[in-house]
Amino acid sequence: MTVEANKKNDEAEIQRAIEGYVEALRARDIDGVMSIYAPELVSFDLVPPLQYVGAEAYRNHWLEGWSLLQGPMGYEVHDLSITVGDDVAFTRSLNRSSATLNTGQKIDFWLRWTTCFRKINGKWLIVHMHVSVPFDFETGRAVLSLKP
Amino acid sequence: MTVEANKKNDEAEIQRAIEGYVEALRARDIDGVMSIYAPELVSFDLVPPLQYVGAEAYRNHWLEGWSLLQGPMGYEVHDLSITVGDDVAFTRSLNRSSATLNTGQKIDFWLRWTTCFRKINGKWLIVHMHVSVPFDFETGRAVLSLKP
Repeated sequence: MTVEANKKNDEAEIQRAIEGYVEALRARDIDGVMSIYAPELVSFDLVPPLQYVGAEAYRNHWLEGWSLLQGPMGYEVHDLSITVGDDVAFTRSLNRSSATLNTGQKIDFWLRWTTCFRKINGKWLIVHMHVSVPFDFETGRAVLSLKP
Repeated sequence: MTVEANKKNDEAEIQRAIEGYVEALRARDIDGVMSIYAPELVSFDLVPPLQYVGAEAYRNHWLEGWSLLQGPMGYEVHDLSITVGDDVAFTRSLNRSSATLNTGQKIDFWLRWTTCFRKINGKWLIVHMHVSVPFDFETGRAVLSLKP
């Protein structure tokens, strides 16, 4: 294949991996979620600590988070941009996350998502990701009301 | 050069670019700061909106932010990890940011920084970056007291 055809192919693979990831998140399927992470994943998450080092630490974080929710989770990836090199790639998107907490409270907000991939043994895996919402410098509060 | 030597070279170039960027930030040198950004930069910043599209929008954001500060800004990059492909690269780090506001109030906190580079006409430039602090889900407040 030409370099261009390879890039298209890699882009399509990453897109499919992300689609699978989103389906797994919605279904709260932890093995599906984990299958996109490299073991050495370092994640900067919405909530403390500053970083989660290693995919296993992040697995536990998902399970703990999900234990606060009722039923499936809403998750949509919008404006996905994928940039692919030979064995390194990154994506950015604005994602909508929604859920019902065990308390009955509904949450529904937009977040920013950056993923950094490496192609390891022929498979694209996330080695680093960063999820966040901005905060208001005056009030010190996270801003959960923003829409793209 | 071998592939390995090229990677080492690219890593060193990105490291130097980041060192120059940090010096420019500390000195509040806007042209120095801008010189690491590609024109098509999309930045997910500490504060709203969800994203800054285009380096020019982000230039104005820096100038507005700096207008709230007295004197130079403190900025340190720690635990920098650089992953390099042929013409795509990314970094992550935990950065310490400090400053004195015009009101006299001192700020000093750690943030998470992810940068995504492309090699454009032989020069590594940031096409996407993501800066954030986590927030406390219970209180809705940004957490500025975390240390690595």
